[in-house]
Amino acid sequence: MEFNFYMPVKVITQKNCVMQNASLLSDFGKKCLIITGNHGAKASGALDDVITALESENIAYEVFDEIMPNPLLSIAYRAGKLAKSTQANFIIAIGGGSVIDAAKAAAIYATNDFFDMEDIYQKHYSASPLPLVVIGTTAGTGSEVSKVAVITNDRTMQKQSISDDACYAALALCDAKYTYNNARALTVSTALDAFAHALEGWFSRKRNTVAELFAIKCMRDIFEILTCLSEGKQLSEEQRDTMYCCSIYAGMVLNVGTLYPHMLGYTLTDKRGVPHGQACAVFDLHLIEWNEKYAPDLANTFFRLVGADSARVLSVLDSLIDIPESVSFSAEEIERYSHSWTDDNPKFTNVYGNFTRKDALRLFTKLFEEA
Amino acid sequence: MEFNFYMPVKVITQKNCVMQNASLLSDFGKKCLIITGNHGAKASGALDDVITALESENIAYEVFDEIMPNPLLSIAYRAGKLAKSTQANFIIAIGGGSVIDAAKAAAIYATNDFFDMEDIYQKHYSASPLPLVVIGTTAGTGSEVSKVAVITNDRTMQKQSISDDACYAALALCDAKYTYNNARALTVSTALDAFAHALEGWFSRKRNTVAELFAIKCMRDIFEILTCLSEGKQLSEEQRDTMYCCSIYAGMVLNVGTLYPHMLGYTLTDKRGVPHGQACAVFDLHLIEWNEKYAPDLANTFFRLVGADSARVLSVLDSLIDIPESVSFSAEEIERYSHSWTDDNPKFTNVYGNFTRKDALRLFTKLFEEA
Repeated sequence: MEFNFYMPVKVITQKNCVMQNASLLSDFGKKCLIITGNHGAKASGALDDVITALESENIAYEVFDEIMPNPLLSIAYRAGKLAKSTQANFIIAIGGGSVIDAAKAAAIYATNDFFDMEDIYQKHYSASPLPLVVIGTTAGTGSEVSKVAVITNDRTMQKQSISDDACYAALALCDAKYTYNNARALTVSTALDAFAHALEGWFSRKRNTVAELFAIKCMRDIFEILTCLSEGKQLSEEQRDTMYCCSIYAGMVLNVGTLYPHMLGYTLTDKRGVPHGQACAVFDLHLIEWNEKYAPDLANTFFRLVGADSARVLSVLDSLIDIPESVSFSAEEIERYSHSWTDDNPKFTNVYGNFTRKDALRLFTKLFEEA
Repeated sequence: MEFNFYMPVKVITQKNCVMQNASLLSDFGKKCLIITGNHGAKASGALDDVITALESENIAYEVFDEIMPNPLLSIAYRAGKLAKSTQANFIIAIGGGSVIDAAKAAAIYATNDFFDMEDIYQKHYSASPLPLVVIGTTAGTGSEVSKVAVITNDRTMQKQSISDDACYAALALCDAKYTYNNARALTVSTALDAFAHALEGWFSRKRNTVAELFAIKCMRDIFEILTCLSEGKQLSEEQRDTMYCCSIYAGMVLNVGTLYPHMLGYTLTDKRGVPHGQACAVFDLHLIEWNEKYAPDLANTFFRLVGADSARVLSVLDSLIDIPESVSFSAEEIERYSHSWTDDNPKFTNVYGNFTRKDALRLFTKLFEEA
């Protein structure tokens, strides 16, 4: 029996929760910086709602809308320095995982001066970050409730995680309506991402009570939605509501950390632009088969909870994976990009069985070495 | 689908966690007030561990050891003013629910000046409470992770709840070893209290995802331990570990609020000194039967999760309830003590079916009106 837990985000999941909880924003101060990408926040209506809420509370704001998918550290740094120079009391992030993760780093940069921008990865912060309010516009990342920010290091051009209590948002306003108009490709990739969080947390040696309970809560629902998507169906608004809520549940699982599918997937995204959820899913197929061998009891429980057998789960995931044939790597590239795939990487050591650098290289080579 | 959640306590459940996490205490400052009762904290070894930890971190401390079971507001007030006058930066509570709840109120009194001591129940606090570290020595209250403090109002001599985010502790250090030497009567009563939290949360209309998941997690384990106790067995250390962890899980359920068994039970405790867990359990029997009638699906799921049928659950609870025959009330007393049992009390309205003041009076009278 164990229970170690710290997740201090105030989470409100409710239709029209931005407007209905405008007064909570005043608790953070009279000036804020809104951080978004250049599209989703506006198209979803979330930016308009936030501006209306801020104006109703007489909170001044600036907008930084330059976050791109797979954001660079330098962009988060610029956003943070803008928050500082404009004397923002807090930050509101509106977007998917890229925006939320960049805003987590920006909130740290706003109050901390580092010798080098990269020092943010060292996780020694002299000052508390600016309070962060997050408003998701995709149903996948779970970053709303996680202490993780994944930001691409400009120097290495590789994704690198900051996993620290300082990354927790203060408030998450979760309204699935902002996901209703997400395009099919985005919907599929983000749903695969949520499934990956539940799956990898379930099969992690670090799995704890919270991860287990929330994985149990969301796995079947996410799989049902993946099944609908694999059949080419449109999601109803009700399914979108379920999916967004499940992405938050999967985010509660995420705090035990992910496994090698995320690690290997980062390379597909960093180097070939494969959407994150797709990039994880292709290796999640392998993780499932691996655990059938090395953690059969856990795997059997997993299939029972999902409500499908191994063949069915693999086939649904497989049908949704859509990575072009052209995504491939030379042997030299694989060697070069894999320097962090060490035997002692937690994303390897937390796997049941003995998953090593050699296994990772064998798997990646089999799937992606150019002919 | 919903997910509204806020539980910012950092919970660490681990053998010897006080010593192993001494450095966390330094984050709160260099001076603290320890709040305890006059027995449990010392007898369990928890006070010694805390003092050793504080000394290792060069944190100065004072001890206020006057908290009695079912603490008065005036005692919490005195503790709070002592924290203020000694310029404590934080409070450490060591004890069961009475101590932890009193310390929650003391932490508020330490930083807030009220016109009247009773104004604390109004929940308008101009300043944040002192940070509170809680160390439990019984396995039942769940107050470590709840936002509730139940304190007896000196004026009315009735228990009255403060349920507010301000009551959350900052840190809970949970080491079941402090419960190993609890006497049988205390063990039974606190275990019944934990079961009541899971049970009443399960059957509450306010039940949410978190309450449901944690109730599912702990109900069967608590019931197995109640069964052992009903057979007169001693609990092993392993069972004590399980029971303490389950009391925390049940505390996670508690944040949706309890139902009429707690309300009616308060009167047995306030007026006749019946231990809190016993006082709730006698009405929990009725709550189970009530829900078999008014929420049969929920009741059936409950029995399945507990792993016992209705008759078995009722019989185990009944065998553990030990309220002297002499506990009785005149009709006039029942009328006088029941003024807060109004039809619109949330502890009534959150019950399935239509539980009213009339039902409460009928039940209480049947069980406790003097012959």
